[in-house]
Amino acid sequence: MKARHVTVREVGIRDGLQAEAFVPTATKIAILGAMVAAGLRHIQPTSFVSPRAVPQHADAEAVLAGMTQAPGLHLCGLVPNSRGAERAIATPLHALEAVVSVSETHNRKNLNRPVDASMQDAAEIARIARGAGRAFEIGFSTAFGCPFEGEVVPARLGALAARAAALGASLISLGDTTGMAVPPTVRAAVAAVRDAAPGVRLGLHFHNTRGVGLACVMEGLRLGVRHFDASAGGLGGCPFAPGATGNICTEDLAYLLEESGYATGLRLDALIGVAEMMRAAVGHDLPGQVMRAGPRLRRHPADSVPTATG
Amino acid sequence: MKARHVTVREVGIRDGLQAEAFVPTATKIAILGAMVAAGLRHIQPTSFVSPRAVPQHADAEAVLAGMTQAPGLHLCGLVPNSRGAERAIATPLHALEAVVSVSETHNRKNLNRPVDASMQDAAEIARIARGAGRAFEIGFSTAFGCPFEGEVVPARLGALAARAAALGASLISLGDTTGMAVPPTVRAAVAAVRDAAPGVRLGLHFHNTRGVGLACVMEGLRLGVRHFDASAGGLGGCPFAPGATGNICTEDLAYLLEESGYATGLRLDALIGVAEMMRAAVGHDLPGQVMRAGPRLRRHPADSVPTATG
Repeated sequence: MKARHVTVREVGIRDGLQAEAFVPTATKIAILGAMVAAGLRHIQPTSFVSPRAVPQHADAEAVLAGMTQAPGLHLCGLVPNSRGAERAIATPLHALEAVVSVSETHNRKNLNRPVDASMQDAAEIARIARGAGRAFEIGFSTAFGCPFEGEVVPARLGALAARAAALGASLISLGDTTGMAVPPTVRAAVAAVRDAAPGVRLGLHFHNTRGVGLACVMEGLRLGVRHFDASAGGLGGCPFAPGATGNICTEDLAYLLEESGYATGLRLDALIGVAEMMRAAVGHDLPGQVMRAGPRLRRHPADSVPTATG
Repeated sequence: MKARHVTVREVGIRDGLQAEAFVPTATKIAILGAMVAAGLRHIQPTSFVSPRAVPQHADAEAVLAGMTQAPGLHLCGLVPNSRGAERAIATPLHALEAVVSVSETHNRKNLNRPVDASMQDAAEIARIARGAGRAFEIGFSTAFGCPFEGEVVPARLGALAARAAALGASLISLGDTTGMAVPPTVRAAVAAVRDAAPGVRLGLHFHNTRGVGLACVMEGLRLGVRHFDASAGGLGGCPFAPGATGNICTEDLAYLLEESGYATGLRLDALIGVAEMMRAAVGHDLPGQVMRAGPRLRRHPADSVPTATG
């Protein structure tokens, strides 16, 4: 099969750590270095939200100042408003990602303002990014459903995507904040965004809250999507979305992609090492499966288990 | 979308409990009753292996004697040899499932004999089943790879499937014993069996050892397969296969199928109740996700989480 490239964007340090106790800056920098060494080139290392709202990312500038650089590295920071954008452009970030919820209720919980006001903030973030020679990206939260409102209307997502395209977004990422994506809602969301924002690169950001994250990736691949967010070890959660659990797991995703004939540029053994570092950093087990089971063709000696006597 | 029926075969009591401490017969019967009440009609309630090899199923006859009957119920027992077949036909089972590994090494570990000898046993099981008016089914273990030998050759699986068809098998189930299935090996195995045994119903039995069980279901659905094994709560493992972990999870699978427009005849809330019973029976958490997160459109009150102040 001809290899096709798929971008795996690592969001573990940004999204995954949000609900955890503060991880020391030096530990984050060490893990980010290991991520780069494993072949990851699209990474979200931090967020420029208020340190009061998300204390985990109070060290955003220090993390970026300490990070390993590498050819082809594309670092994107999450930015909720113009204050965050001004902080972000003073760092070596390549891209600023605005975040807006498709659902009004979730946007008010997450950003404390109406969706329309957040889109105006996004315009301001885009202007600041452009002025500093950085890419502007946008993530739409609750793109496949909202834990407060239920279903979201694809046309509403489409209207937001059209506004994002008009702002010059180079990436539209659809966030499955609380794991409500299923193949039909993936189809509907992807179609709505492609119709409204043709030519803008599309990414999918799934959580494995209901176990179907990689099934949704399969649907995304079938639709031609070639950019997926994931978190080392499957760490994750959102403090402002009830029931949110981990992102899909980076090394499980990489395993699925590589075994399916896609090229990711990632080394599975090194990704497993990254997941182990993440587990050590947070001090508890992670949901990733490949980090337990190892590569597909790991051999076991025949005498490692008993022989049945039936 | 037109609903298409997919059979979910529940194997939790048979496969899932194998590696657990003995669960009392009455508890098994209660869980099996709840499974039937949740809409499950294809169930593997037990195994007729030697009680020395798998003490969990020493109560096979008592479980079957105590089980709820229901219209359309199809109960299948795992049967390793003619001694097990003679026991099985003395119970109300509808079908006897022989089990043979594609890999020589795994077959020797699991059944203590060469593959060819196990296929001769399967012929004897088929004869005993037919004589008693029961269906004959066959499960091929390590159909997507072997933890001792590595890759399995699809032609080898095809040759075994042809022999199974000649024995009158009404179902060929392909077992991903240690979670080595990935979409390309699913395609290869399904093609090999369909070529060799056209017209025989094909089932897929995945373990989620490397997190891609439901991604493999997506590939199976795309290929037209309409029969999948799963275990309540995702319980599972095989004492004779190193690294084996749980089957794919029944309620997560049912959620994916129903949300994707397939009809399963299953009630998700009742399946979650079954998984809770299973968890209580084994006394530890299970990997199932939907049993934690609940149905897709479960609503949360907006004041159930704080509002960000960023």
